[in-house]
Amino acid sequence: MSQSLDETIAASGVIAARGFRAAGVACGLKKNGALDLALVTSEYDCTCAGVFTTNRVQAAPVLYDKATLASNARALRAVVINSGCANACTGDAGLEDARTMASETARALGVQTEQVLVMSTGVIGQRLPMDKIRAGITLAVPRLSPAGGADAARAIMTTDTRPKVYALRNAAYTIGGMCKGAGMIHPQMATMLALVTTDAQIAPDLLDRAVRVAVNQSFNRISVDGDTSTNDTVLVLANGASGKEIGASDIEDFTTTLTQVCVNLAQQIVRDGEGATKFVEIVVSGARTEAEAVRVAKAIANSPLVKTALYGGDANWGRVIAAAGYSGVAVDVATMTLWFGEVNVFARGMPTDFHEAASTRAIAGSEVSIRLDLGQGTAQTTVWTCDLSHDYVTINGKYRT
Amino acid sequence: MSQSLDETIAASGVIAARGFRAAGVACGLKKNGALDLALVTSEYDCTCAGVFTTNRVQAAPVLYDKATLASNARALRAVVINSGCANACTGDAGLEDARTMASETARALGVQTEQVLVMSTGVIGQRLPMDKIRAGITLAVPRLSPAGGADAARAIMTTDTRPKVYALRNAAYTIGGMCKGAGMIHPQMATMLALVTTDAQIAPDLLDRAVRVAVNQSFNRISVDGDTSTNDTVLVLANGASGKEIGASDIEDFTTTLTQVCVNLAQQIVRDGEGATKFVEIVVSGARTEAEAVRVAKAIANSPLVKTALYGGDANWGRVIAAAGYSGVAVDVATMTLWFGEVNVFARGMPTDFHEAASTRAIAGSEVSIRLDLGQGTAQTTVWTCDLSHDYVTINGKYRT
Repeated sequence: MSQSLDETIAASGVIAARGFRAAGVACGLKKNGALDLALVTSEYDCTCAGVFTTNRVQAAPVLYDKATLASNARALRAVVINSGCANACTGDAGLEDARTMASETARALGVQTEQVLVMSTGVIGQRLPMDKIRAGITLAVPRLSPAGGADAARAIMTTDTRPKVYALRNAAYTIGGMCKGAGMIHPQMATMLALVTTDAQIAPDLLDRAVRVAVNQSFNRISVDGDTSTNDTVLVLANGASGKEIGASDIEDFTTTLTQVCVNLAQQIVRDGEGATKFVEIVVSGARTEAEAVRVAKAIANSPLVKTALYGGDANWGRVIAAAGYSGVAVDVATMTLWFGEVNVFARGMPTDFHEAASTRAIAGSEVSIRLDLGQGTAQTTVWTCDLSHDYVTINGKYRT
Repeated sequence: MSQSLDETIAASGVIAARGFRAAGVACGLKKNGALDLALVTSEYDCTCAGVFTTNRVQAAPVLYDKATLASNARALRAVVINSGCANACTGDAGLEDARTMASETARALGVQTEQVLVMSTGVIGQRLPMDKIRAGITLAVPRLSPAGGADAARAIMTTDTRPKVYALRNAAYTIGGMCKGAGMIHPQMATMLALVTTDAQIAPDLLDRAVRVAVNQSFNRISVDGDTSTNDTVLVLANGASGKEIGASDIEDFTTTLTQVCVNLAQQIVRDGEGATKFVEIVVSGARTEAEAVRVAKAIANSPLVKTALYGGDANWGRVIAAAGYSGVAVDVATMTLWFGEVNVFARGMPTDFHEAASTRAIAGSEVSIRLDLGQGTAQTTVWTCDLSHDYVTINGKYRT
């Protein structure tokens, strides 16, 4: 099913789908007075599916949402999100704070506590200032509107420099979302959150399957070990307001559209990567399996040596080959071929006689393409990353101050 | 067996043991005219053991040395080492260059080709300029002397800011060595080389076992995935000149002394880490197994977020907990306790009421200690790393230029 790319729809993000409202307010969690609490609500009960961090240290809102979804994936009504504090490593008290955040939101909206999910992002190890959270909820409810998506997207930002929203609409339904992510090299702290809404009607188990496919092709393909934060969360709410029910005949289209929305949001994270000056697409082909292609691509995407070379404009292709070599996949240098942009720099185990100036030009712009053919099979993958700059070090050397 | 720490002996490095001579010369591999070819020889045949990179992409000198040692681990006489070019990703031609480097050295010394090992370090993907290598060998042989250790240690440097040597002597024998290493976060390219000599007499199989123990406690405990370069090599030569034969009753002492030499050399790599401003010791205790302790410690040591926070003087302990959480070990946040220096910042799942000023002071100096008790068992380990600074980005953004 085709969908039109409408800039206005795309920009409306999480409230593009029918029956959703949003608000973003400032309640004092961020020292600079910026928006720091977002509320997204649905007029109708939503089915919901979520994907959460696999870090063994899981933040309180992650534990809370998982427990809530386990008992209620059919009648969700709201998600409340704060930035400025991750509510991670805060023990039982932090879990109680997450529950209070949900119950206070439920009370203000006149719904049940188990109909509300929560997300938090920011510094690890500090308790949520609950007086500010309460004040924020009180402030947000009367501001809920079908136009509040922009404020909500701003309110979940941390080191992000711009809000990240996207939406697609087809003849039958709309899928839209927002996310935040510092796009750091490894999202090892309170980093990546995404909330996607749709007015399609879809059963929780179908939705769950669609979400796992979409996340695997999007948020799990940015560099960025997508799973390592204490707070990483992707939630998808479906309220059925379009009247379109997704069944066996539509699930593939729905999954494709959801994947497109998620890929766009994920790429926005990389483009806004901390200190990033380049958006880098890494295609690994000729792998024996997709899993091996992903493993090689991520080794390249996570290599600080590859990333600093790209930042410095140095077409140091040997670092790409070396990263493939230690990826854990049984690669063979004699069958590897590598391109920087259109420049073939290495072919079946040997450097080509390319011109250094050409390879330097190939990585000079703000969009860089690296393509590695392993020469071992037919599987391939694409991952996206950014370079590693001086500003990355500056930002992360003083994150809490 | 006790050994005295004698500064003069320590400083003589690879020629501290009897019967070894060394030289370092400039043959034009480095653009700035610095020393770039080292030669170390023994008057007597040496047994030899080596540990090499596990990267699937292995540089020509690694492949050459492995093959040579497989057929001759009993009668080695020389090691020739160049910096400025890694001879990696150079195919069959590169392997032929490595062999020629050995045969030219053998000819100049009047020994057999299979008695010579080679090492290379520098940029990946470029052929060795063999005319310069030949000229360097011709230049080096007449300069061989029992005082040439300092020149040799300088000749193997790349982004190192200082040579790295160490030696220990006891009543019976001496073990000394030199190494080079940019001490980068992940030594993913042509990085770490070490050459250790001893005048003890020891059979190849005993030596091999001792080397594996020593390397595992030293070069494999710096951060620095010790195994990921295309060129990483540790060679130990034993020429028996002391007359002391190492057998079953002495092997433990020998291994301990060898380990001490290797730990000192490995720590010098970290202290000279690219752009490093801090030397960081990470102790992980209370693990179920040593392997799990190492895995957690390396996750912390390799985290760019932990390293940038240390550089910035930000006692962001949540990043340490998060890194432990994604290490792949089944840790439990509720049993974790963490110290920055002497300051207990986190105890059994909850932040303590420590003073921020105290934790900031604890990481303010050039030597930082981080201690994490997992609370799951009795195994422990120590790894060493450095911080991640602006200079790291600068150095690696323009490595080849």
